[in-house]
Amino acid sequence: MRRTHGRRVVSKPEAFVGMFQLNDGERASRCARPVTLVACADGVGTKVLLGVKAKRLHGLGVDLVAMNVNDLITCGARPLFFLDYIAVHRLEPKRLLEVIEGMSEGCRQAECALLGGETAQMPDMYARGQFDLAGFAVGVVQQGRAIDGEGVAPGDVLIGLPSNGLHSNGYSLLRKWLARRQLKLNRHYDELGETLADAVLRPTKIYVPDVLALLDGYRIKRVVTGMAHITGGGLPDNVGRVLGNRCSAVIETGSWKPPPIYAFMRKRGMKRAEMFRVFNMGIGFVLAVRPRYAKGVLARLEDCRASPVVIGSMRRGTGKVLLR
Amino acid sequence: MRRTHGRRVVSKPEAFVGMFQLNDGERASRCARPVTLVACADGVGTKVLLGVKAKRLHGLGVDLVAMNVNDLITCGARPLFFLDYIAVHRLEPKRLLEVIEGMSEGCRQAECALLGGETAQMPDMYARGQFDLAGFAVGVVQQGRAIDGEGVAPGDVLIGLPSNGLHSNGYSLLRKWLARRQLKLNRHYDELGETLADAVLRPTKIYVPDVLALLDGYRIKRVVTGMAHITGGGLPDNVGRVLGNRCSAVIETGSWKPPPIYAFMRKRGMKRAEMFRVFNMGIGFVLAVRPRYAKGVLARLEDCRASPVVIGSMRRGTGKVLLR
Repeated sequence: MRRTHGRRVVSKPEAFVGMFQLNDGERASRCARPVTLVACADGVGTKVLLGVKAKRLHGLGVDLVAMNVNDLITCGARPLFFLDYIAVHRLEPKRLLEVIEGMSEGCRQAECALLGGETAQMPDMYARGQFDLAGFAVGVVQQGRAIDGEGVAPGDVLIGLPSNGLHSNGYSLLRKWLARRQLKLNRHYDELGETLADAVLRPTKIYVPDVLALLDGYRIKRVVTGMAHITGGGLPDNVGRVLGNRCSAVIETGSWKPPPIYAFMRKRGMKRAEMFRVFNMGIGFVLAVRPRYAKGVLARLEDCRASPVVIGSMRRGTGKVLLR
Repeated sequence: MRRTHGRRVVSKPEAFVGMFQLNDGERASRCARPVTLVACADGVGTKVLLGVKAKRLHGLGVDLVAMNVNDLITCGARPLFFLDYIAVHRLEPKRLLEVIEGMSEGCRQAECALLGGETAQMPDMYARGQFDLAGFAVGVVQQGRAIDGEGVAPGDVLIGLPSNGLHSNGYSLLRKWLARRQLKLNRHYDELGETLADAVLRPTKIYVPDVLALLDGYRIKRVVTGMAHITGGGLPDNVGRVLGNRCSAVIETGSWKPPPIYAFMRKRGMKRAEMFRVFNMGIGFVLAVRPRYAKGVLARLEDCRASPVVIGSMRRGTGKVLLR
């Protein structure tokens, strides 16, 4: 990858998002603050297989947008547009429309344009009724205002934003467990207050409006030092990614109440340690915030009903995430 | 899609590329010519299946970039960066590296950055050894300099740039024909001057340097009125897309010499009419050029060894493409 980069790529190859500076010629001006384009690609993994099985495709469209735009905002970028790639066995307009309506709904929530995409029909590659989804999002951040975790320091407060369930990660483990336990997706469980399908196929929460509203409130001060979208690898891996090598994170796992699906899975044989490595466990997005601004940030996030929770803090360390 | 668009999306939903204007805040300047971002998504279709069978993955990486950047430049945009989505049965680092090296090579040819991507491991979705590829490219064009075919007029000269073979379209038809004729990929044919695998798996030609060098030569004059990347649907569909409803195109199919693979397929039972609907037939990219500039354009394209050929012209009509 690196040999294609040049000076205009300002992100690290291992980052979730790629960052590309528009130069003077492209801005066609030498006047003022330039911008950096931010881009990422992601799919929804094997949640697709479960969505197809339960005939719920709309939610997968929302998931696809969510997985991308939630990654995009971790660096402080504002999503501009989204494109999709849908690969199918055969074009079935009604099912395809359901996915596209979901993506459209996701783009509305993320305040970005569904700009285009590609639908590929490949009967020899995908089984009947099966398909795969990939998405790409592009956003923009002012140069010098990108949040890359470099500023994370001991004492920073970790604020979590609740997930609404499993979002779009851990579905290989989930599907194995469903098969082993022979659980029926369409059965209603009182513990869940809904059917199992409702609980495991709820579309991923989109954090864009809440996070951007927060950042818009601090245009000069550097209040948020790092952000993490909690995806595959759970809290340890994703919070770990923004730590650098001066900090460790301590997360108090008792400080929030996970959605009932987690207790449901735990009760039916899933191991807690494995769950923390695979699922978001109830926290879908984490912000590291300078301690003196934590109260203000919490108030702002409460104002937009984001239900923020203090889940831990940074301390001097060597890049570890400790779950307590 | 439309409900997510707003005034900043300036492309039509049916266009191959999406166009998104950066606004004043994002340029952070009210000084000078603003730019439009251009984006597209594409895969390489079932050429993947043939590439996997012949164990040639490097070329598929080049193909993936080519399919996207060749689309991107049809509107006059300069590619900035590229992202990929690779879905696999199981991660096999060596094979994956081969694809990534191909993409890196493609990005170098297209003078854009390989900015990032996503690799998804989904053993239940993809068969052993199988995978799918999707790509996504973003470019930039000065507002008011985008070429959208609106300016195409009767009399415009159609200049074709040769393909180097099948590029990345028509592989479902090709694979059916290969199976029916029981042809061996690794056999050398004198008619081809190479093995069948060499002929059908050659990486797609990337037209970016030639087309951008041409456009850079005319920064004020509007010389090129429309461009088409010849993909699925062949010359009729893809040239047809830039005609509007004031013109028809007449293409003299004897005016260029296709690569030997086309005569090879024709001789072995493939139907000419079907081939024209599915393959590029030797012309991978078409430019519609104002007649008074045709000579100059040809000279410039010859200077960069693009081997341009006059393949036809526009005449008054109703959006038809006539092959003669």
